[in-house]
Amino acid sequence: MENITSNQNGRVKAWQKLQTKKGRQANQTYLLDGWHLVQEAIHHDGHLHAIMGTSAQLAEHQEELPLGVPVFEITTDIAKKLSDLVTPQGIFAEVSLPTAKREPQYVHQGAWLFLDGIQDPGNVGTMVRTADAAGFAGVVFGEGSVDPYSPKAVRAMQGSQFHLTITDGDLLKWTNTFRDNEINVYGTQLDPTAADLFSVQPQATFALVMGNEGQGMRPELAAATSQNLFIPLSGEAESLNVAVAAGIAMFALKQR
Amino acid sequence: MENITSNQNGRVKAWQKLQTKKGRQANQTYLLDGWHLVQEAIHHDGHLHAIMGTSAQLAEHQEELPLGVPVFEITTDIAKKLSDLVTPQGIFAEVSLPTAKREPQYVHQGAWLFLDGIQDPGNVGTMVRTADAAGFAGVVFGEGSVDPYSPKAVRAMQGSQFHLTITDGDLLKWTNTFRDNEINVYGTQLDPTAADLFSVQPQATFALVMGNEGQGMRPELAAATSQNLFIPLSGEAESLNVAVAAGIAMFALKQR
Repeated sequence: MENITSNQNGRVKAWQKLQTKKGRQANQTYLLDGWHLVQEAIHHDGHLHAIMGTSAQLAEHQEELPLGVPVFEITTDIAKKLSDLVTPQGIFAEVSLPTAKREPQYVHQGAWLFLDGIQDPGNVGTMVRTADAAGFAGVVFGEGSVDPYSPKAVRAMQGSQFHLTITDGDLLKWTNTFRDNEINVYGTQLDPTAADLFSVQPQATFALVMGNEGQGMRPELAAATSQNLFIPLSGEAESLNVAVAAGIAMFALKQR
Repeated sequence: MENITSNQNGRVKAWQKLQTKKGRQANQTYLLDGWHLVQEAIHHDGHLHAIMGTSAQLAEHQEELPLGVPVFEITTDIAKKLSDLVTPQGIFAEVSLPTAKREPQYVHQGAWLFLDGIQDPGNVGTMVRTADAAGFAGVVFGEGSVDPYSPKAVRAMQGSQFHLTITDGDLLKWTNTFRDNEINVYGTQLDPTAADLFSVQPQATFALVMGNEGQGMRPELAAATSQNLFIPLSGEAESLNVAVAAGIAMFALKQR
C-alpha cells in the first residue's frame, strides 16, 4: 500500500482530472465516491484500477477490499480534493468506463430507456437508478445527453450502472431498428392529443424515450416512434420533473 | 419606482436574509426567483410585497406587473446577491409565507401527501410539484421535514405552492384524524411484506405518507397508518429516489 500525503502528488492530480468529461475520456476511467459505490464495483466486477481511502476508511473496510487492486492511503485533505462533496466519506475507487458499445440490431428483448438530450446530471443518474429498479435492460444516451459519469450523475445512480447496460448511440437508428424488429418505441410528450400513458398494456420488450427538460424530444425522433404518450395531469402544474415522469412511465409500461 | 444601486442598501440586506429559514420566519415572507414564479404569484394572488428587477427585466414584463405592488429596479450585481443561481434571470418577488394552518379535522376530501422527515429541498420541491400535477389537494410537512421555502425547494416547486394547500402539522394527529373520519392513510416502505402499491384501487380521498430519504417513515407513524405499501422493484437497485417513488405512488393511487 502506498501512502500519499501531498496534494501535489501526480496521482492526486490525475484523479482530479477525472472530475471533467475530457479527463475521463482521455483516461477511460471515472471515480466512485463513497463506500456504497466502491462496494458495488467490487461485487459486480467493475474493473477497478485503484482504491483510495483515508486510514480510518481503509481500516473499516480492510476485509472487503479485493486482492490485486492497488490501494492508496490518502489524507482527509486529499479526499476533499477528489470529491465534490463538502464532507466526503473518504473512500474512492477509480474504475474503467464501460467499453462495450451496444448496437440495436443485436437487441431482441427487454425494456430500454432512450435519453434524448437530457441535460441535468442528477436527472440522468436518477433515471438510470429508476430503470434498474423497474427491471429495465439498458439505457441509451443519445447525442446531446449529458455525460453519465460526472460525479453528480454517478452519485445519483447509486451503483445502478453496474446492474444494467449503459451505452451511447444514435436514437433515430435505435428507434428505426427496434421498429424494424417489431419492438414498440414509445415517445413521451406534454401534448394531451398524444395517447394516455395509462391506456397502454404493460409489456416486457419495448423502448421508452424521454426528451430534454425544456424542449422535449427532437421532432424528428417524435415522428419516428411507434406511438407518443402523455401523462395525464389533473392539477395546475404544467409539467413534471423529467426524472419523476420517467419513473411513472417506466413503472406503468413495464410488465411485472 | 425606486432605483437601488448599492449592495449595502438596507432593503437588499433584508431580502438577502430571506435566504435563511430564520430570516423567512422573522419576516414571514420568502423570495421568488425568475419570471415564471413571479408570474405564478401574480396570477394566484400570492400576496406580493415587492417586485425587484433589472431594468431589462422590468421593461420586458412591464405590462404584466400588478398595480399597487412596490417595484424596485436593481442592478445585475444585486440580482446575483439575491439569487443562489450563478446567472439569475434578474427578476424577483417578495411574497408572504402562507399563514393559514390547516387542521385535519376540517379535511373531508381530496388526496393529501404527508412528508415525514424529508431532508432534501430539491426532493421536497419536486414532490409538491408532482402532487399538484397529480391533482392532490395538499401537502402536510411533518416535524423534521425541511423548510419548503428555501430557494432550492421553491425553484423545484415551479409555482405549485400557489395551486394546492401547504401546511405543517403533527403527522400522527393527521393520520389518526383521517382514520377516525374513515379516510385511508397509506404509508410507504421498502419492506416487500407490505402490500403491493399496484394492488390498491385508485381513490379520490386518501393520504399517502413518504418517509425520510435514509430511514423511511418513523416506526410509530408506520404503525398508525391504514396500510403500508411498497413499490415492487424488479432489478438490483435497492431503492428509488424518494421524489420518484412519490411520483409513482401518487399517480398509481389517485383516481383520474
